[in-house]
Amino acid sequence: MLVEGRHFLPGAEPRALGHKALAVNLSDLAACGATPRWITLALALPAADERWLKDFAAGLFALADRHGVELVGGDTTRGPLTIDITAFGEVPAGKALSRAGARPGDELWVSGSLGGASLALAHPEIAAAAQRLHQPEPRVALGERLRGLARAAIDVSDGLAGDLGHILKRSAVGAVVHYERLPKDAAFGKMKDAELEKQCVLSGGDDYELLFAAARDRHGAVEAVAKELGIALSPIGELNSQQGKLTVLDASGKPMSYRGGYDHFARS
Amino acid sequence: MLVEGRHFLPGAEPRALGHKALAVNLSDLAACGATPRWITLALALPAADERWLKDFAAGLFALADRHGVELVGGDTTRGPLTIDITAFGEVPAGKALSRAGARPGDELWVSGSLGGASLALAHPEIAAAAQRLHQPEPRVALGERLRGLARAAIDVSDGLAGDLGHILKRSAVGAVVHYERLPKDAAFGKMKDAELEKQCVLSGGDDYELLFAAARDRHGAVEAVAKELGIALSPIGELNSQQGKLTVLDASGKPMSYRGGYDHFARS
Repeated sequence: MLVEGRHFLPGAEPRALGHKALAVNLSDLAACGATPRWITLALALPAADERWLKDFAAGLFALADRHGVELVGGDTTRGPLTIDITAFGEVPAGKALSRAGARPGDELWVSGSLGGASLALAHPEIAAAAQRLHQPEPRVALGERLRGLARAAIDVSDGLAGDLGHILKRSAVGAVVHYERLPKDAAFGKMKDAELEKQCVLSGGDDYELLFAAARDRHGAVEAVAKELGIALSPIGELNSQQGKLTVLDASGKPMSYRGGYDHFARS
Repeated sequence: MLVEGRHFLPGAEPRALGHKALAVNLSDLAACGATPRWITLALALPAADERWLKDFAAGLFALADRHGVELVGGDTTRGPLTIDITAFGEVPAGKALSRAGARPGDELWVSGSLGGASLALAHPEIAAAAQRLHQPEPRVALGERLRGLARAAIDVSDGLAGDLGHILKRSAVGAVVHYERLPKDAAFGKMKDAELEKQCVLSGGDDYELLFAAARDRHGAVEAVAKELGIALSPIGELNSQQGKLTVLDASGKPMSYRGGYDHFARS
Protein backbone atom coordinates (compact mmCIF):
# COMPACT_ATOMS: atom_id res chain seq x y z
CA MET A 1 0.00 0.00 0.00
CA LEU A 2 1.62 3.20 -1.21
CA VAL A 3 0.48 6.50 0.28
CA GLU A 4 1.26 9.89 -1.28
CA GLY A 5 3.57 11.93 0.92
CA ARG A 6 4.86 8.79 2.63
CA HIS A 7 5.95 6.35 -0.07
CA PHE A 8 6.19 8.86 -2.90
CA LEU A 9 6.23 12.63 -3.24
CA PRO A 10 3.14 14.66 -4.12
CA GLY A 11 3.19 15.20 -7.86
CA ALA A 12 5.20 12.04 -8.57
CA GLU A 13 5.26 11.08 -12.24
CA PRO A 14 2.28 8.69 -12.68
CA ARG A 15 3.89 6.40 -15.27
CA ALA A 16 6.85 5.66 -12.99
CA LEU A 17 4.45 5.28 -10.08
CA GLY A 18 2.41 2.66 -11.96
CA HIS A 19 5.60 0.76 -12.72
CA LYS A 20 6.96 0.94 -9.20
CA ALA A 21 3.67 0.09 -7.45
CA LEU A 22 3.65 -3.20 -9.34
CA ALA A 23 7.42 -3.76 -9.26
CA VAL A 24 7.60 -3.79 -5.46
CA ASN A 25 4.91 -6.48 -5.38
CA LEU A 26 6.58 -8.61 -8.05
CA SER A 27 9.79 -8.27 -6.05
CA ASP A 28 8.05 -9.77 -3.01
CA LEU A 29 6.91 -12.71 -5.12
CA ALA A 30 10.42 -13.11 -6.54
CA ALA A 31 11.76 -13.36 -2.99
CA CYS A 32 9.39 -16.31 -2.49
CA GLY A 33 10.53 -17.96 -5.71
CA ALA A 34 7.03 -17.50 -7.11
CA THR A 35 5.96 -16.94 -10.70
CA PRO A 36 3.68 -13.87 -10.76
CA ARG A 37 0.21 -14.50 -12.21
CA TRP A 38 -2.50 -12.06 -11.09
CA ILE A 39 -2.89 -8.71 -9.38
CA THR A 40 -5.67 -6.70 -7.82
CA LEU A 41 -5.49 -2.91 -7.73
CA ALA A 42 -7.31 -0.53 -5.40
CA LEU A 43 -6.88 3.18 -6.02
CA ALA A 44 -8.01 6.13 -3.95
CA LEU A 45 -7.76 9.33 -5.98
CA PRO A 46 -8.46 12.92 -4.94
CA ALA A 47 -10.21 13.48 -8.30
CA ALA A 48 -10.92 11.55 -11.50
CA ASP A 49 -7.87 12.75 -13.47
CA GLU A 50 -7.94 10.99 -16.84
CA ARG A 51 -4.43 11.95 -17.85
CA TRP A 52 -3.02 10.73 -14.55
CA LEU A 53 -4.89 7.44 -14.84
CA LYS A 54 -3.77 6.89 -18.41
CA ASP A 55 -0.11 7.40 -17.54
CA PHE A 56 -0.35 5.36 -14.34
CA ALA A 57 -1.98 2.49 -16.24
CA ALA A 58 0.64 2.68 -19.00
CA GLY A 59 3.46 2.24 -16.48
CA LEU A 60 1.68 -0.54 -14.64
CA PHE A 61 0.57 -2.56 -17.65
CA ALA A 62 3.89 -2.30 -19.47
CA LEU A 63 5.50 -4.16 -16.57
CA ALA A 64 2.53 -6.49 -16.06
CA ASP A 65 2.55 -7.50 -19.71
CA ARG A 66 6.26 -8.24 -19.65
CA HIS A 67 5.64 -10.77 -16.87
CA GLY A 68 2.32 -12.12 -18.17
CA VAL A 69 0.50 -10.75 -15.11
CA GLU A 70 -3.26 -10.19 -15.32
CA LEU A 71 -5.37 -7.63 -13.42
CA VAL A 72 -8.27 -9.63 -11.94
CA GLY A 73 -10.02 -7.25 -9.56
CA GLY A 74 -9.93 -4.12 -7.50
CA ASP A 75 -11.66 -0.90 -6.66
CA THR A 76 -11.52 2.83 -7.30
CA THR A 77 -12.72 5.49 -4.92
CA ARG A 78 -12.11 9.06 -3.94
CA GLY A 79 -9.62 9.80 -1.17
CA PRO A 80 -6.03 10.82 -0.46
CA LEU A 81 -3.90 9.32 -3.26
CA THR A 82 -3.31 5.71 -2.19
CA ILE A 83 -2.31 2.76 -4.35
CA ASP A 84 -2.81 -0.76 -3.12
CA ILE A 85 -1.71 -3.63 -5.31
CA THR A 86 -1.86 -7.25 -4.20
CA ALA A 87 0.06 -9.70 -6.36
CA PHE A 88 -0.55 -13.44 -6.54
CA GLY A 89 1.90 -15.98 -7.85
CA GLU A 90 2.42 -19.69 -8.10
CA VAL A 91 5.19 -21.86 -6.79
CA PRO A 92 5.32 -25.67 -6.69
CA ALA A 93 4.11 -27.07 -3.35
CA GLY A 94 6.87 -27.04 -0.74
CA LYS A 95 9.23 -25.01 -2.95
CA ALA A 96 8.42 -21.48 -1.77
CA LEU A 97 11.38 -19.56 -0.36
CA SER A 98 11.02 -17.74 2.95
CA ARG A 99 13.13 -15.85 5.44
CA ALA A 100 13.46 -18.98 7.54
CA GLY A 101 15.61 -21.93 6.52
CA ALA A 102 19.13 -20.46 6.39
CA ARG A 103 21.77 -22.34 8.39
CA PRO A 104 25.15 -21.54 9.96
CA GLY A 105 27.85 -22.08 7.35
CA ASP A 106 25.63 -20.97 4.44
CA GLU A 107 26.97 -18.41 2.02
CA LEU A 108 25.15 -15.11 1.68
CA TRP A 109 24.55 -13.71 -1.81
CA VAL A 110 23.06 -10.56 -3.25
CA SER A 111 22.04 -9.81 -6.82
CA GLY A 112 22.95 -6.77 -8.92
CA SER A 113 24.20 -3.75 -7.00
CA LEU A 114 23.22 -1.88 -3.86
CA GLY A 115 22.74 1.74 -2.87
CA GLY A 116 21.70 3.23 -6.21
CA ALA A 117 18.08 3.89 -5.28
CA SER A 118 18.86 5.69 -2.04
CA LEU A 119 21.71 7.60 -3.71
CA ALA A 120 19.03 9.17 -5.90
CA LEU A 121 17.43 10.69 -2.81
CA ALA A 122 20.65 12.61 -2.09
CA HIS A 123 21.56 13.17 -5.75
CA PRO A 124 18.44 13.18 -7.93
CA GLU A 125 20.56 14.55 -10.79
CA ILE A 126 22.29 11.17 -11.27
CA ALA A 127 20.06 9.66 -13.97
CA ALA A 128 21.03 6.03 -13.46
CA ALA A 129 20.40 6.30 -9.73
CA ALA A 130 17.03 7.98 -10.34
CA GLN A 131 16.17 5.11 -12.65
CA ARG A 132 16.96 2.65 -9.86
CA LEU A 133 14.71 4.57 -7.46
CA HIS A 134 11.74 5.20 -9.73
CA GLN A 135 11.81 2.23 -12.09
CA PRO A 136 13.12 -0.76 -10.16
CA GLU A 137 13.25 -4.07 -12.03
CA PRO A 138 11.93 -6.95 -9.92
CA ARG A 139 14.21 -10.02 -10.01
CA VAL A 140 11.45 -12.38 -11.13
CA ALA A 141 13.53 -14.79 -13.22
CA LEU A 142 16.18 -15.02 -10.51
CA GLY A 143 13.57 -15.79 -7.84
CA GLU A 144 12.24 -18.66 -9.93
CA ARG A 145 15.73 -20.09 -10.46
CA LEU A 146 16.48 -19.93 -6.71
CA ARG A 147 13.77 -22.52 -5.92
CA GLY A 148 15.54 -25.54 -4.48
CA LEU A 149 18.84 -23.63 -4.54
CA ALA A 150 18.51 -20.89 -1.92
CA ARG A 151 17.63 -21.85 1.65
CA ALA A 152 16.23 -18.42 2.55
CA ALA A 153 15.63 -15.23 0.60
CA ILE A 154 14.30 -11.70 0.92
CA ASP A 155 14.19 -8.67 -1.33
CA VAL A 156 16.18 -5.61 -0.30
CA SER A 157 13.44 -3.03 0.10
CA ASP A 158 14.35 -1.45 3.44
CA GLY A 159 18.16 -1.70 3.20
CA LEU A 160 20.63 -4.59 3.37
CA ALA A 161 21.17 -4.46 7.13
CA GLY A 162 17.48 -4.30 7.95
CA ASP A 163 16.35 -6.95 5.49
CA LEU A 164 19.20 -9.30 6.35
CA GLY A 165 18.08 -8.84 9.95
CA HIS A 166 14.74 -10.46 9.01
CA ILE A 167 16.53 -13.56 7.67
CA LEU A 168 18.75 -13.74 10.76
CA LYS A 169 15.76 -13.51 13.07
CA ARG A 170 13.53 -15.97 11.26
CA SER A 171 16.35 -18.43 10.58
CA ALA A 172 17.86 -17.97 14.07
CA VAL A 173 21.36 -17.44 12.68
CA GLY A 174 23.98 -14.66 12.64
CA ALA A 175 25.97 -13.24 9.72
CA VAL A 176 29.31 -11.74 8.85
CA VAL A 177 29.21 -9.47 5.79
CA HIS A 178 32.40 -8.21 4.14
CA TYR A 179 31.87 -4.61 3.11
CA GLU A 180 34.45 -4.72 0.32
CA ARG A 181 32.61 -7.63 -1.30
CA LEU A 182 29.31 -5.75 -1.48
CA PRO A 183 28.36 -4.87 -5.07
CA LYS A 184 27.99 -1.09 -5.01
CA ASP A 185 26.16 1.06 -7.50
CA ALA A 186 28.60 2.26 -10.18
CA ALA A 187 27.99 5.93 -9.33
CA PHE A 188 29.79 5.59 -5.98
CA GLY A 189 33.11 4.89 -7.71
CA LYS A 190 33.50 8.50 -8.87
CA MET A 191 31.97 10.17 -5.82
CA LYS A 192 34.58 9.26 -3.19
CA ASP A 193 32.06 9.90 -0.40
CA ALA A 194 32.69 6.93 1.90
CA GLU A 195 30.05 7.90 4.46
CA LEU A 196 27.26 8.40 1.90
CA GLU A 197 28.26 5.17 0.17
CA LYS A 198 28.10 3.24 3.43
CA GLN A 199 24.71 4.69 4.34
CA CYS A 200 23.27 3.89 0.92
CA VAL A 201 24.82 0.44 0.48
CA LEU A 202 24.19 -0.90 3.99
CA SER A 203 21.05 0.94 4.98
CA GLY A 204 19.46 2.48 1.91
CA GLY A 205 16.18 1.02 0.73
CA ASP A 206 14.36 0.55 -2.56
CA ASP A 207 17.03 -1.41 -4.46
CA TYR A 208 14.80 -4.50 -4.83
CA GLU A 209 17.73 -6.84 -5.25
CA LEU A 210 17.43 -10.38 -3.92
CA LEU A 211 19.44 -11.33 -0.84
CA PHE A 212 19.68 -15.05 -0.23
CA ALA A 213 21.48 -17.79 1.65
CA ALA A 214 22.65 -20.98 -0.03
CA ALA A 215 24.65 -23.98 1.14
CA ARG A 216 28.36 -23.58 0.53
CA ASP A 217 28.45 -26.64 -1.76
CA ARG A 218 25.96 -24.86 -4.08
CA HIS A 219 28.46 -22.07 -4.81
CA GLY A 220 29.01 -23.29 -8.36
CA ALA A 221 25.29 -23.75 -8.96
CA VAL A 222 24.62 -20.14 -7.93
CA GLU A 223 27.39 -18.93 -10.24
CA ALA A 224 25.84 -20.94 -13.06
CA VAL A 225 22.49 -19.17 -12.50
CA ALA A 226 24.27 -15.79 -12.62
CA LYS A 227 25.83 -16.73 -15.93
CA GLU A 228 22.60 -18.15 -17.35
CA LEU A 229 20.57 -15.04 -16.46
CA GLY A 230 23.37 -12.58 -17.25
CA ILE A 231 23.17 -10.86 -13.87
CA ALA A 232 25.74 -10.35 -11.14
CA LEU A 233 25.38 -12.54 -8.05
CA SER A 234 27.93 -11.65 -5.38
CA PRO A 235 28.92 -13.77 -2.37
CA ILE A 236 29.02 -11.14 0.38
CA GLY A 237 29.51 -13.14 3.57
CA GLU A 238 28.58 -16.18 5.57
CA LEU A 239 26.13 -17.23 8.24
CA ASN A 240 27.07 -18.37 11.74
CA SER A 241 25.31 -19.46 14.90
CA GLN A 242 25.25 -16.05 16.63
CA GLN A 243 21.47 -15.72 16.57
CA GLY A 244 20.31 -12.41 15.16
CA LYS A 245 23.76 -10.78 15.16
CA LEU A 246 25.01 -9.03 12.04
CA THR A 247 28.67 -8.07 11.84
CA VAL A 248 29.91 -5.96 8.94
CA LEU A 249 33.68 -6.05 8.47
CA ASP A 250 35.70 -3.43 6.61
CA ALA A 251 38.58 -4.21 4.25
CA SER A 252 40.97 -4.50 7.20
CA GLY A 253 38.67 -6.92 9.03
CA LYS A 254 37.41 -4.37 11.59
CA PRO A 255 33.68 -4.22 12.50
CA MET A 256 31.83 -1.24 10.99
CA SER A 257 28.87 0.59 12.50
CA TYR A 258 25.65 0.75 10.48
CA ARG A 259 22.03 1.77 10.78
CA GLY A 260 19.32 -0.89 10.82
CA GLY A 261 16.05 -1.20 8.93
CA TYR A 262 13.06 1.02 8.52
CA ASP A 263 10.15 1.06 10.96
CA HIS A 264 6.99 2.48 9.40
CA PHE A 265 5.67 3.48 12.80
CA ALA A 266 8.90 4.73 14.43
CA ARG A 267 8.63 8.21 15.97
CA SER A 268 10.33 10.59 13.59
CA MET B 1 -11.25 0.47 -0.37
CA LEU B 2 -12.70 2.40 2.53
CA VAL B 3 -11.35 5.87 3.28
CA GLU B 4 -11.96 7.69 6.56
CA GLY B 5 -14.11 10.76 6.07
CA ARG B 6 -15.56 9.35 2.87
CA HIS B 7 -16.83 5.84 3.58
CA PHE B 8 -16.96 6.17 7.36
CA LEU B 9 -16.80 8.99 9.89
CA PRO B 10 -13.61 9.92 11.72
CA GLY B 11 -13.69 8.12 15.06
CA ALA B 12 -15.88 5.27 13.78
CA GLU B 13 -16.05 2.32 16.18
CA PRO B 14 -13.20 -0.01 15.04
CA ARG B 15 -14.98 -3.29 15.80
CA ALA B 16 -17.94 -2.38 13.59
CA LEU B 17 -15.52 -1.07 10.97
CA GLY B 18 -13.66 -4.40 10.88
CA HIS B 19 -16.95 -6.21 10.43
CA LYS B 20 -18.25 -3.89 7.72
CA ALA B 21 -15.00 -3.70 5.75
CA LEU B 22 -15.19 -7.46 5.30
CA ALA B 23 -18.99 -7.67 4.99
CA VAL B 24 -19.10 -5.42 1.92
CA ASN B 25 -16.59 -7.68 0.20
CA LEU B 26 -18.39 -10.89 1.11
CA SER B 27 -21.55 -9.25 -0.21
CA ASP B 28 -19.87 -8.73 -3.59
CA LEU B 29 -18.92 -12.40 -3.67
CA ALA B 30 -22.48 -13.40 -2.67
CA ALA B 31 -23.78 -11.41 -5.65
CA CYS B 32 -21.56 -13.61 -7.85
CA GLY B 33 -22.83 -16.79 -6.22
CA ALA B 34 -19.33 -17.43 -4.91
CA THR B 35 -18.28 -19.18 -1.71
CA PRO B 36 -15.84 -16.88 0.10
CA ARG B 37 -12.42 -18.43 0.82
CA TRP B 38 -9.58 -15.95 1.29
CA ILE B 39 -8.97 -12.26 1.91
CA THR B 40 -6.07 -9.86 1.80
CA LEU B 41 -6.03 -6.77 3.99
CA ALA B 42 -4.06 -3.58 3.50
CA LEU B 43 -4.29 -0.95 6.22
CA ALA B 44 -2.97 2.59 6.29
CA LEU B 45 -3.07 3.97 9.84
CA PRO B 46 -2.15 7.43 11.12
CA ALA B 47 -0.45 5.77 14.12
CA ALA B 48 0.11 2.28 15.53
CA ASP B 49 -2.88 2.24 17.89
CA GLU B 50 -2.97 -1.20 19.54
CA ARG B 51 -6.42 -0.83 21.02
CA TRP B 52 -7.86 0.22 17.65
CA LEU B 53 -6.16 -2.69 15.88
CA LYS B 54 -7.37 -5.19 18.46
CA ASP B 55 -10.98 -4.08 18.13
CA PHE B 56 -10.81 -3.81 14.33
CA ALA B 57 -9.36 -7.32 14.12
CA ALA B 58 -12.00 -8.69 16.52
CA GLY B 59 -14.81 -7.39 14.28
CA LEU B 60 -13.17 -8.60 11.12
CA PHE B 61 -12.21 -12.07 12.29
CA ALA B 62 -15.54 -12.77 13.99
CA LEU B 63 -17.20 -12.45 10.59
CA ALA B 64 -14.35 -14.17 8.72
CA ASP B 65 -14.48 -17.16 11.05
CA ARG B 66 -18.24 -17.52 10.64
CA HIS B 67 -17.71 -17.91 6.90
CA GLY B 68 -14.49 -19.93 7.07
CA VAL B 69 -12.55 -17.15 5.37
CA GLU B 70 -8.77 -17.00 5.80
CA LEU B 71 -6.50 -13.94 5.76
CA VAL B 72 -3.70 -14.82 3.32
CA GLY B 73 -1.78 -11.59 2.79
CA GLY B 74 -1.67 -7.84 3.01
CA ASP B 75 0.24 -4.85 4.21
CA THR B 76 0.29 -2.23 6.95
CA THR B 77 1.67 1.23 6.60
CA ARG B 78 1.29 4.73 7.96
CA GLY B 79 -1.11 7.09 6.23
CA PRO B 80 -4.62 8.54 6.30
CA LEU B 81 -6.88 5.78 7.71
CA THR B 82 -7.65 3.55 4.72
CA ILE B 83 -8.84 -0.04 4.71
CA ASP B 84 -8.52 -2.16 1.61
CA ILE B 85 -9.81 -5.70 1.68
CA THR B 86 -9.85 -7.95 -1.36
CA ALA B 87 -11.93 -11.11 -1.05
CA PHE B 88 -11.53 -14.24 -3.13
CA GLY B 89 -14.12 -16.93 -3.52
CA GLU B 90 -14.87 -20.03 -5.53
CA VAL B 91 -17.74 -20.84 -7.80
CA PRO B 92 -18.10 -23.83 -10.15
CA ALA B 93 -16.92 -23.02 -13.68
CA GLY B 94 -19.64 -21.31 -15.70
CA LYS B 95 -21.92 -20.86 -12.66
CA ALA B 96 -20.89 -17.38 -11.53
CA LEU B 97 -23.72 -14.83 -11.45
CA SER B 98 -23.21 -11.45 -13.03
CA ARG B 99 -25.19 -8.33 -13.86
CA ALA B 100 -25.67 -9.57 -17.39
CA GLY B 101 -28.02 -12.44 -18.28
CA ALA B 102 -31.44 -11.14 -17.21
CA ARG B 103 -34.16 -11.32 -19.89
CA PRO B 104 -37.46 -9.56 -20.60
CA GLY B 105 -40.22 -11.39 -18.74
CA ASP B 106 -37.98 -12.36 -15.79
CA GLU B 107 -39.19 -11.66 -12.29
CA LEU B 108 -37.20 -9.31 -10.09
CA TRP B 109 -36.55 -10.31 -6.48
CA VAL B 110 -34.90 -8.71 -3.48
CA SER B 111 -33.86 -10.29 -0.19
CA GLY B 112 -34.63 -9.06 3.33
CA SER B 113 -35.69 -5.42 3.62
CA LEU B 114 -34.56 -2.12 2.17
CA GLY B 115 -33.85 1.35 3.50
CA GLY B 116 -32.77 0.51 7.05
CA ALA B 117 -29.10 1.39 6.61
CA SER B 118 -29.74 4.82 5.10
CA LEU B 119 -32.49 5.51 7.63
CA ALA B 120 -29.76 5.31 10.27
CA LEU B 121 -28.03 8.29 8.65
CA ALA B 122 -31.14 10.43 9.29
CA HIS B 123 -32.05 8.75 12.58
CA PRO B 124 -28.96 7.31 14.26
CA GLU B 125 -31.04 6.83 17.44
CA ILE B 126 -32.96 3.92 15.86
CA ALA B 127 -30.88 0.99 17.09
CA ALA B 128 -32.05 -1.59 14.54
CA ALA B 129 -31.33 0.81 11.68
CA ALA B 130 -27.89 1.63 13.08
CA GLN B 131 -27.23 -2.10 13.22
CA ARG B 132 -28.12 -2.37 9.52
CA LEU B 133 -25.75 0.47 8.68
CA HIS B 134 -22.77 -0.54 10.79
CA GLN B 135 -23.04 -4.33 10.93
CA PRO B 136 -24.50 -5.50 7.62
CA GLU B 137 -24.84 -9.24 7.16
CA PRO B 138 -23.67 -10.38 3.74
CA ARG B 139 -26.12 -12.78 2.05
CA VAL B 140 -23.51 -15.48 1.47
CA ALA B 141 -25.75 -18.56 1.78
CA LEU B 142 -28.38 -16.98 -0.47
CA GLY B 143 -25.79 -16.15 -3.13
CA GLU B 144 -24.63 -19.76 -3.20
CA ARG B 145 -28.22 -21.04 -3.54
CA LEU B 146 -28.91 -18.64 -6.44
CA ARG B 147 -26.36 -20.39 -8.68
CA GLY B 148 -28.27 -21.87 -11.57
CA LEU B 149 -31.46 -20.20 -10.32
CA ALA B 150 -30.95 -16.45 -10.81
CA ARG B 151 -30.07 -15.15 -14.27
CA ALA B 152 -28.46 -11.96 -12.99
CA ALA B 153 -27.71 -10.57 -9.55
CA ILE B 154 -26.16 -7.62 -7.73
CA ASP B 155 -25.92 -6.53 -4.12
CA VAL B 156 -27.71 -3.36 -3.08
CA SER B 157 -24.82 -1.20 -1.95
CA ASP B 158 -25.60 2.11 -3.66
CA GLY B 159 -29.41 1.96 -3.53
CA LEU B 160 -32.04 -0.12 -5.30
CA ALA B 161 -32.53 2.23 -8.25
CA GLY B 162 -28.82 2.65 -8.90
CA ASP B 163 -27.88 -1.00 -8.52
CA LEU B 164 -30.85 -2.22 -10.54
CA GLY B 165 -29.67 0.23 -13.20
CA HIS B 166 -26.44 -1.80 -13.48
CA ILE B 167 -28.42 -4.98 -14.20
CA LEU B 168 -30.60 -3.17 -16.74
CA LYS B 169 -27.58 -1.77 -18.53
CA ARG B 170 -25.51 -4.96 -18.58
CA SER B 171 -28.49 -7.18 -19.43
CA ALA B 172 -29.92 -4.65 -21.93
CA VAL B 173 -33.39 -4.86 -20.41
CA GLY B 174 -35.84 -2.52 -18.67
CA ALA B 175 -37.80 -2.99 -15.43
CA VAL B 176 -41.05 -2.14 -13.75
CA VAL B 177 -40.86 -2.14 -9.95
CA HIS B 178 -43.97 -1.94 -7.80
CA TYR B 179 -43.27 0.31 -4.84
CA GLU B 180 -45.87 -1.30 -2.58
CA ARG B 181 -44.23 -4.69 -3.07
CA LEU B 182 -40.82 -3.48 -1.89
CA PRO B 183 -39.86 -4.95 1.49
CA LYS B 184 -39.29 -1.90 3.69
CA ASP B 185 -37.37 -1.76 6.93
CA ALA B 186 -39.78 -2.26 9.85
CA ALA B 187 -38.94 1.16 11.33
CA PHE B 188 -40.71 2.97 8.48
CA GLY B 189 -44.10 1.57 9.56
CA LYS B 190 -44.29 3.81 12.62
CA MET B 191 -42.64 6.87 11.11
CA LYS B 192 -45.25 7.83 8.54
CA ASP B 193 -42.67 9.87 6.60
CA ALA B 194 -43.44 8.90 3.02
CA GLU B 195 -40.71 11.06 1.47
CA LEU B 196 -37.94 9.78 3.74
CA GLU B 197 -39.14 6.22 3.24
CA LYS B 198 -39.05 6.60 -0.54
CA GLN B 199 -35.56 8.12 -0.48
CA CYS B 200 -34.21 5.36 1.75
CA VAL B 201 -35.97 2.43 0.10
CA LEU B 202 -35.38 3.39 -3.53
CA SER B 203 -32.12 5.29 -3.32
CA GLY B 204 -30.48 4.60 0.04
CA GLY B 205 -27.30 2.56 0.02
CA ASP B 206 -25.56 0.13 2.35
CA ASP B 207 -28.37 -2.43 2.78
CA TYR B 208 -26.33 -5.25 1.19
CA GLU B 209 -29.40 -7.22 0.21
CA LEU B 210 -29.28 -9.27 -3.00
CA LEU B 211 -31.31 -8.09 -5.97
CA PHE B 212 -31.75 -10.71 -8.67
CA ALA B 213 -33.68 -11.69 -11.77
CA ALA B 214 -35.06 -15.18 -12.27
CA ALA B 215 -37.20 -16.77 -14.94
CA ARG B 216 -40.91 -16.62 -14.14
CA ASP B 217 -41.18 -20.43 -14.10
CA ARG B 218 -38.63 -20.53 -11.26
CA HIS B 219 -40.96 -18.58 -8.92
CA GLY B 220 -41.64 -21.64 -6.79
CA ALA B 221 -37.94 -22.55 -6.67
CA VAL B 222 -37.06 -19.09 -5.37
CA GLU B 223 -39.78 -19.34 -2.73
CA ALA B 224 -38.37 -22.71 -1.69
CA VAL B 225 -34.93 -21.14 -1.18
CA ALA B 226 -36.49 -18.41 0.98
CA LYS B 227 -38.15 -21.05 3.13
CA GLU B 228 -35.05 -23.20 3.32
CA LEU B 229 -32.83 -20.29 4.42
CA GLY B 230 -35.48 -18.63 6.58
CA ILE B 231 -35.15 -15.26 4.88
CA ALA B 232 -37.65 -13.08 3.05
CA LEU B 233 -37.38 -13.03 -0.74
CA SER B 234 -39.86 -10.60 -2.29
CA PRO B 235 -40.93 -10.46 -5.95
CA ILE B 236 -40.84 -6.71 -6.61
CA GLY B 237 -41.38 -6.38 -10.33
CA GLU B 238 -40.61 -7.69 -13.78
CA LEU B 239 -38.21 -7.08 -16.61
CA ASN B 240 -39.17 -5.87 -20.08
CA SER B 241 -37.44 -4.95 -23.31
CA GLN B 242 -37.16 -1.19 -22.67
CA GLN B 243 -33.37 -1.17 -22.54
CA GLY B 244 -32.03 0.59 -19.45
CA LYS B 245 -35.37 2.08 -18.40
CA LEU B 246 -36.56 1.70 -14.82
CA THR B 247 -40.18 2.55 -14.00
CA VAL B 248 -41.31 2.58 -10.38
CA LEU B 249 -45.09 2.44 -9.96
CA ASP B 250 -46.95 3.55 -6.85
CA ALA B 251 -49.94 1.68 -5.35
CA SER B 252 -52.30 3.33 -7.84
CA GLY B 253 -50.11 2.36 -10.79
CA LYS B 254 -48.67 5.84 -11.37
CA PRO B 255 -44.93 6.30 -12.12
CA MET B 256 -42.91 7.68 -9.19
CA SER B 257 -39.84 9.88 -9.38
CA TYR B 258 -36.64 8.63 -7.75
CA ARG B 259 -32.96 9.43 -7.46
CA GLY B 260 -30.40 7.18 -9.14
CA GLY B 261 -27.17 5.65 -7.86
CA TYR B 262 -24.06 7.03 -6.31
CA ASP B 263 -21.11 8.36 -8.31
CA HIS B 264 -17.90 8.39 -6.30
CA PHE B 265 -16.47 11.14 -8.46
CA ALA B 266 -19.58 13.31 -8.92
CA ARG B 267 -19.06 16.99 -8.07
CA SER B 268 -20.60 17.58 -4.67
